[in-house]
Amino acid sequence: MQKFMTEDFLLNTEAARRLYHEHAEHMPIIDYHCHIPAADILNDVQYENITRLWLAADHYKWRLIRANGEDERVVTGDASDYERFCAFARMLPRAIGNPLFHWTHLELKRFFGYEGLLNEKTAPEVWQLCNEKLKTLSARKMIAMANVECIGTTDDPADDLAAHLALKEDTGFNTRVIPTWRPDKAMNVHKDGFIEYMAKLSSLTGLEINSLDALKEALKIRMAHFVSAGCRISDHDVNIIPAAHEGIEAEEVFAKAMSGEAITEQEKEAYQFELLSFMGREYARLGWVMQLHFGAIRNPNSRIFAAVGADSGIDCIGNSSDALRITMLLNEMERTDQLPKTVLYSLNPNDNNALVCIAGSFQGKECPGKIQHGSAWWFNDTKEGMTAQLKTLAEGGLLGNFIGMLTDSRSFLSYTRHEYFRRVLCRIIGQWVEDGEYPDDMDTLGSIVEDICCNNARRYFGL
Amino acid sequence: MQKFMTEDFLLNTEAARRLYHEHAEHMPIIDYHCHIPAADILNDVQYENITRLWLAADHYKWRLIRANGEDERVVTGDASDYERFCAFARMLPRAIGNPLFHWTHLELKRFFGYEGLLNEKTAPEVWQLCNEKLKTLSARKMIAMANVECIGTTDDPADDLAAHLALKEDTGFNTRVIPTWRPDKAMNVHKDGFIEYMAKLSSLTGLEINSLDALKEALKIRMAHFVSAGCRISDHDVNIIPAAHEGIEAEEVFAKAMSGEAITEQEKEAYQFELLSFMGREYARLGWVMQLHFGAIRNPNSRIFAAVGADSGIDCIGNSSDALRITMLLNEMERTDQLPKTVLYSLNPNDNNALVCIAGSFQGKECPGKIQHGSAWWFNDTKEGMTAQLKTLAEGGLLGNFIGMLTDSRSFLSYTRHEYFRRVLCRIIGQWVEDGEYPDDMDTLGSIVEDICCNNARRYFGL
Amino acid sequence: MQKFMTEDFLLNTEAARRLYHEHAEHMPIIDYHCHIPAADILNDVQYENITRLWLAADHYKWRLIRANGEDERVVTGDASDYERFCAFARMLPRAIGNPLFHWTHLELKRFFGYEGLLNEKTAPEVWQLCNEKLKTLSARKMIAMANVECIGTTDDPADDLAAHLALKEDTGFNTRVIPTWRPDKAMNVHKDGFIEYMAKLSSLTGLEINSLDALKEALKIRMAHFVSAGCRISDHDVNIIPAAHEGIEAEEVFAKAMSGEAITEQEKEAYQFELLSFMGREYARLGWVMQLHFGAIRNPNSRIFAAVGADSGIDCIGNSSDALRITMLLNEMERTDQLPKTVLYSLNPNDNNALVCIAGSFQGKECPGKIQHGSAWWFNDTKEGMTAQLKTLAEGGLLGNFIGMLTDSRSFLSYTRHEYFRRVLCRIIGQWVEDGEYPDDMDTLGSIVEDICCNNARRYFGL
Repeated sequence: MQKFMTEDFLLNTEAARRLYHEHAEHMPIIDYHCHIPAADILNDVQYENITRLWLAADHYKWRLIRANGEDERVVTGDASDYERFCAFARMLPRAIGNPLFHWTHLELKRFFGYEGLLNEKTAPEVWQLCNEKLKTLSARKMIAMANVECIGTTDDPADDLAAHLALKEDTGFNTRVIPTWRPDKAMNVHKDGFIEYMAKLSSLTGLEINSLDALKEALKIRMAHFVSAGCRISDHDVNIIPAAHEGIEAEEVFAKAMSGEAITEQEKEAYQFELLSFMGREYARLGWVMQLHFGAIRNPNSRIFAAVGADSGIDCIGNSSDALRITMLLNEMERTDQLPKTVLYSLNPNDNNALVCIAGSFQGKECPGKIQHGSAWWFNDTKEGMTAQLKTLAEGGLLGNFIGMLTDSRSFLSYTRHEYFRRVLCRIIGQWVEDGEYPDDMDTLGSIVEDICCNNARRYFGL
Repeated sequence: MQKFMTEDFLLNTEAARRLYHEHAEHMPIIDYHCHIPAADILNDVQYENITRLWLAADHYKWRLIRANGEDERVVTGDASDYERFCAFARMLPRAIGNPLFHWTHLELKRFFGYEGLLNEKTAPEVWQLCNEKLKTLSARKMIAMANVECIGTTDDPADDLAAHLALKEDTGFNTRVIPTWRPDKAMNVHKDGFIEYMAKLSSLTGLEINSLDALKEALKIRMAHFVSAGCRISDHDVNIIPAAHEGIEAEEVFAKAMSGEAITEQEKEAYQFELLSFMGREYARLGWVMQLHFGAIRNPNSRIFAAVGADSGIDCIGNSSDALRITMLLNEMERTDQLPKTVLYSLNPNDNNALVCIAGSFQGKECPGKIQHGSAWWFNDTKEGMTAQLKTLAEGGLLGNFIGMLTDSRSFLSYTRHEYFRRVLCRIIGQWVEDGEYPDDMDTLGSIVEDICCNNARRYFGL
Repeated sequence: MQKFMTEDFLLNTEAARRLYHEHAEHMPIIDYHCHIPAADILNDVQYENITRLWLAADHYKWRLIRANGEDERVVTGDASDYERFCAFARMLPRAIGNPLFHWTHLELKRFFGYEGLLNEKTAPEVWQLCNEKLKTLSARKMIAMANVECIGTTDDPADDLAAHLALKEDTGFNTRVIPTWRPDKAMNVHKDGFIEYMAKLSSLTGLEINSLDALKEALKIRMAHFVSAGCRISDHDVNIIPAAHEGIEAEEVFAKAMSGEAITEQEKEAYQFELLSFMGREYARLGWVMQLHFGAIRNPNSRIFAAVGADSGIDCIGNSSDALRITMLLNEMERTDQLPKTVLYSLNPNDNNALVCIAGSFQGKECPGKIQHGSAWWFNDTKEGMTAQLKTLAEGGLLGNFIGMLTDSRSFLSYTRHEYFRRVLCRIIGQWVEDGEYPDDMDTLGSIVEDICCNNARRYFGL
């Protein structure tokens, strides 16, 4: 029997252990997609206590605390920081088999040097230990401890990127922090705030945005600004893959929205299809990567949404995405040879097989693995979820060209998720070697593992 | 190599064996959802031979016998009981990997003391042995042998519950038998018999049911009757999750149905959405649990349906359920804080991930695990199916709060499915312990296992 | 640690090894569905070099070479055969976990006696070795080496089947080669070329095809021709399962198509539903098997399609198939007791559970396993994909009655896929025996394995 979470955690074969300890473990982290504010890095923020770091914004934890029957007061309400921490601690042992159980203990080990378990009984000692340690920890220190080479934040086209630009000049900090272009507000023609957002882009660019063409021009100006801050990645949250619809012109949808009229579902789609493929072509021109995240249901619980707002742990996995629509969207760019490097992420793991397949049908000579099936996203970022993503990719594509893990996180402690991913990766490959399904050639295997952990992402994003 | 089905069947680690034999094995069974007629318990029925017990109503077995190319005569036709038994016996060895192979041999062991295999060769001896033993077995004896603490039957709102009420008074029988409110006939506004059913409810309640409001009143009266018989659980078979549709009023759909007009698909949905959310709010008020079963295709084979009728082994897994609709249905009650405790079951295992997620987005302070992803249902009630349900739940929610297994069965021998479930549960948890993925803390692990086997259900249903 | 691909490749238990080496290994191959031209067998074709054999038509390989970032020139373009081979060789080590990595090395072992690895370094020696060996290999020799008893090709109703008829007469060749009736062109009423195809059928049959009834008569005449060449299997590629639509008459859709008018999606479906169920009833009458392949997206990448054409490695897994429609299609024949033996294949593995279930609901007394869930198809023909198909089938049906593997291939080397399948099968069953989930009864187990490898298919297709 293995002890809990030793140095060989998840590494159940000799080959897995060698691959992890001799190759994966020491590779720098390229965290190319996360939700950390660049300003927090610039300002090298510190945290008063572990609740502020763990429970202020982590909706993964909120969900589980609620699932333990706790009152909202100790989840997101006005309970004291210590009460909230205790609610988390008493839930934790029930989370058997949950990645949060693993992440939490990995974070306690790696950042706080705590080797015990967190539960109701140990909560007081862990609280004290962490808070003591936090006096010496800061954003940059945690980044350095985790050996992070590059961080890709998530940013609105209207952002000034001041923090990114300042970090670029900061010679005392070696981790590269690059912005990601996330133009959801320009895509969401059907939502409140669209007109105001156009006004904002207008004032930033000096263009009068009175047509879709003008919007495109404005976006190009902002893209140039993002380039100046080191951007090379875009990201889109498209719950439903948009399609073109005969007889609906994106230009007219734009005009309708600007005059304050309600937009139908089909109009929204036609507009998004047009604007997204326009931007995709620009990404291709700029050498950027296009990330597409789809399949989430946002804020379906109106009781909690009214009380807590968005990103509060009530989002859900939605239906399977429409494979045909995905191919039609990609083909809109591919048919003129203007498809950018693209990473496809679906929140519904039932899409894995189709996505690997679709990626394989749109590859190109620009680079190995031009179209990627993205790392197991969000609710799938679990041992089984990552295993399924990796095996599906291996069986349907070239695992050796995979760009690997990202945290998608709001926390500086989440870099342990890269460790978790790497252990799962080495476990899978190690098992293949152990079973005689791949040759025991440590040179090839080691370089495949190092590539997936770091080198592939470095090359793919041009870092 | 393990021998077939020893005491350590499915328990492949030391931790699994300890968890099962020291914790799971001796916990009473709360079989909170089944299809046994309460009258059979009241009357303590006996069975003339093993065909009557095994093959009179078990459509799981009928399916497999048909899949072996047998004539319907020996499946549900007029062949002799012994012929039918032999058809089952000669099919069984072909059912390698099928849960029926395991269930059958577990039932032979636990209830008949037969340690051998059933096949064409042993059929005569098994036939004799079982039939001899059946002289001493009865419904209540089998319930007692299986250590069943509580049985939840399935009942129509118009049922008089006479058997339940009589059993409640029976001081010589310790197993609690409670009715479950299953109002499908009131929901099925589009089906033949609706008007007659309304008349029946009318005569039972003394109310003239000439409006949807009147129906609601009548249902409340019947709910009160169910409460008097100990009811605390409802159940709904909703093949397609209903949605509200703009411009369609449930009241008008009701009137249309009562006047004998045909109901469209959308009208049916609007009516069901309204009535189901009304009942859900009542369940919340009464502290009842709402079970929602969805995703089945009923009776698609009209040749066999014509010959044998419903529940004859021709139902199928339907398409994935619409995740967005599920959230909208739950939110209809949640938005006014009137969502009852709810158990979600889909017949399509592709829904597992979304359901665990949806459950996690609608939790509440009423109890731990207020919204549950139900145990692997029907065609999923297999080793792999249960494993998938348990692992998905563990990775996406709190496995420690799971209310566990039910038989959903028509047979008094099916309690061995709880044993099967418990072995699978201990196997999964034992493997995590063995692999160092959860601490080897037998106190915590033992109480988690006992909770999932029994205590969680006891608390959840308020037994 | 196991060495790579020994004699016990994939056989990780003693039971698996015994089942494979004592039972599976020596069974003849019934390759009942493939895309080899019968003429290639008749002419006993040879190959100038390994690129001609491996890379001339194998779109599985093309996909992966493209995924490695190679230019189309070395995939399907005008690069030299050796350059193309090298592009394949340098991709191969990156294909860790991909079945192509295994298939390639199995083919090198079994047909070329090469025991090493193929990669960039060994490419020159493998090139030379294979090309040398190819001088002594031919179609018939490879078929004989693989112990193939029967080959089912794929043929259009308008084919003259001259090669099949000649092979039937060839007493010097023992492998039976039978045509498969694949009437996609008659089904595709919505596609260009339909009118011309009708003209072709007309001239072949001497019937004026001016109505749907006439078409049916013509098809019956061609079926009789296929019978004369030994046909007993049909095959349909139906991307979307067709449904009947109220108010749309197939006869009118046919007339519309013949007058050159465009056909709507619903019209196409109504026509296909009618024609497919007509043909199904004919298959039942003739004792033929109906194979239904559904769920593919064809040629979504218009850039590569324009350059390379169909079957060029750009097809994709489509959405889940509509389970209700499948049942309605089968029931259209079943309700009059005219459903033929049927094999259901979906390209989307999410359909596995529903398909196994549907098969189980339409069984009949004609033979064991009348309705089959087909072997893992195309992108699913992987270790995990086959394992999922086999386990789902075992848990939901009678694995013992499964008709097993087919290559679906265009290459004479692909018979190693039967070996791969057999190893996976023995691995799964061996593990069950090892774990005590099935009795260690080698007589029963051996005959189940031999049945799935060969005997079931032989009986099912009446060979």
